[in-house]
Amino acid sequence: MSAGDKIKGKLKLNAAIVDRFIDENLQIKTPATLYEASRHLIMAGGKRLRPYLVMKSCELVCGNVNNSVPFAAALEVLHNFTLIHDDIMDNDDFRRGVPTVHKKWGVPMGVASGDLLFSKVYDFIIDAYRLGIISGEGALECIERVTDASIAICEGQVWDTSFPSMENVSEEEYIEMVGGKTSALFKACAEIGGIVGGASKDQIKNLGQFAWDSGIAFQIVDDILGVISDEKTLGKPIGSDLREGKKTIIIIYALQNGTEEEKKAIRKVLGVRNASEENILAANEALKTSCGLDYARGKAENYVKQAYSYLDTFRDCEAKEDLKTLINYFTERLY
Amino acid sequence: MSAGDKIKGKLKLNAAIVDRFIDENLQIKTPATLYEASRHLIMAGGKRLRPYLVMKSCELVCGNVNNSVPFAAALEVLHNFTLIHDDIMDNDDFRRGVPTVHKKWGVPMGVASGDLLFSKVYDFIIDAYRLGIISGEGALECIERVTDASIAICEGQVWDTSFPSMENVSEEEYIEMVGGKTSALFKACAEIGGIVGGASKDQIKNLGQFAWDSGIAFQIVDDILGVISDEKTLGKPIGSDLREGKKTIIIIYALQNGTEEEKKAIRKVLGVRNASEENILAANEALKTSCGLDYARGKAENYVKQAYSYLDTFRDCEAKEDLKTLINYFTERLY
Repeated sequence: MSAGDKIKGKLKLNAAIVDRFIDENLQIKTPATLYEASRHLIMAGGKRLRPYLVMKSCELVCGNVNNSVPFAAALEVLHNFTLIHDDIMDNDDFRRGVPTVHKKWGVPMGVASGDLLFSKVYDFIIDAYRLGIISGEGALECIERVTDASIAICEGQVWDTSFPSMENVSEEEYIEMVGGKTSALFKACAEIGGIVGGASKDQIKNLGQFAWDSGIAFQIVDDILGVISDEKTLGKPIGSDLREGKKTIIIIYALQNGTEEEKKAIRKVLGVRNASEENILAANEALKTSCGLDYARGKAENYVKQAYSYLDTFRDCEAKEDLKTLINYFTERLY
Repeated sequence: MSAGDKIKGKLKLNAAIVDRFIDENLQIKTPATLYEASRHLIMAGGKRLRPYLVMKSCELVCGNVNNSVPFAAALEVLHNFTLIHDDIMDNDDFRRGVPTVHKKWGVPMGVASGDLLFSKVYDFIIDAYRLGIISGEGALECIERVTDASIAICEGQVWDTSFPSMENVSEEEYIEMVGGKTSALFKACAEIGGIVGGASKDQIKNLGQFAWDSGIAFQIVDDILGVISDEKTLGKPIGSDLREGKKTIIIIYALQNGTEEEKKAIRKVLGVRNASEENILAANEALKTSCGLDYARGKAENYVKQAYSYLDTFRDCEAKEDLKTLINYFTERLY
């Protein structure tokens, strides 16, 4: 049984609990359009990886998983807020198979519904505190993590949108960007799960580092899939990263270490929105022959190994297995 | 000496303290453009009414005003976040005499810098807690108020942008919109000033109600100024509210109680962006002759009176006088 098969059922189980919580705590009020727009993307689906991280981290430190649900919901809401605003910034039309919020209701509603969701993140945490689910000190620890992650996400998103106009992006800059865009939130999820579960300071630290490295691996794998997948699996046209001028770790490596011909093929389409199919395929081939793909695979595997090492500081239990399966699932998508 | 003369010096004094705090706690980091964009509107000026409300409310309940500075700064930052996003939603080009953030750096940076400022609101409060300026319980009370205000602001802004397309808007709907757009934040400011100053529950409640009513008066006065001021005082063309199809309390009143001719003159330009100067002046005149202006003046004065009554529950002191002068200054602008 693959990691994917093992984990899908468990993800669904947790997702159902979190979705019910969100549904009940983000009900439609007036002005109705604002609330409909805010619920749109959440209700369109998603794997709920972040809530899973929260709940499994809580379980790992022997916490009461039920108590972690409002926090899992808060972090999924935070994720969706960033997606709605990212879609405006990147001018994307579709996500999760539905029109993006600003495409369906216009940019003003996209901005407002993201802002509403951001507010609801804190609202969920304050509610949990008022209900006695978490201590005041614990609630403030969670709020601090959510806030730090939000700042990192803003920074990461601005890095990401500015890369296309930068001539050279280093691997360090790429990792910093991914840290902001993906790892900061993963880290907040795992740490908050730990905090709610009553983890020690050391445990919280290990959870955070586990999640940070997992996030980097996750993003590198996403970059690889952008090169090796076909259009159907990818859900967007082949070579989208190239056309958008993104500087993925594969593109960065190939531009530094490829042959002159490979570099030329890549530069020819990088950031060229209307690049021809033929040129895109040639550039994609150059990414493969330059060993950029192998390099990225090796990097992803290293990050997974590191993530494992932090998990190994915890007692053996089902939650630990589940978290290992989750990160296996990230890299398994490559084969 | 008018209320305006009396208060301007005091506003400036507090503004300098708050501005220094913001400057030091929102320093430019990488990516630099994100931080420059986030500081742009704040550094362009503004009266700092909201920080003044925070600090004076703290003083009123005999709190240590120095402790209220981080909170005053947080609420000014929150206000600026909402302005940056509002300007995107309303597609406005100028504010405080400078280009709006999205005009200068584009919509993506406008969205991201607003989001960053929103995160910094919570960051400032958490920092104050870590520095021992406020108890955990107090910090959570403040976070709850900030969050509630943010939700109300989102709702108010969506109301405001949907009014132009609504055939009929009632006075109640108008007051609800203003409550969200202006009063919710005023209320949060006064309550948070009270919380930081160690106010009793009753005092916090009275502070909140004082600020709520002040906010409504403030907005009604703004609507009146939109009708009676000349272009230079207003900083935007005469009849902007009419052209944008806004439903101010004056327009609502005139459409309900004016003569058929007055109503016709108003409807002719309401929401018509390219209405002629002549028709705009006729509509503006109809707003005056319909008694809509007098009605709005009376309303504003009533809200000021109510606001006064909540202040009167506090001992006489300089802060109380300063707060009274502040709301006098709101309505004084009318004469």
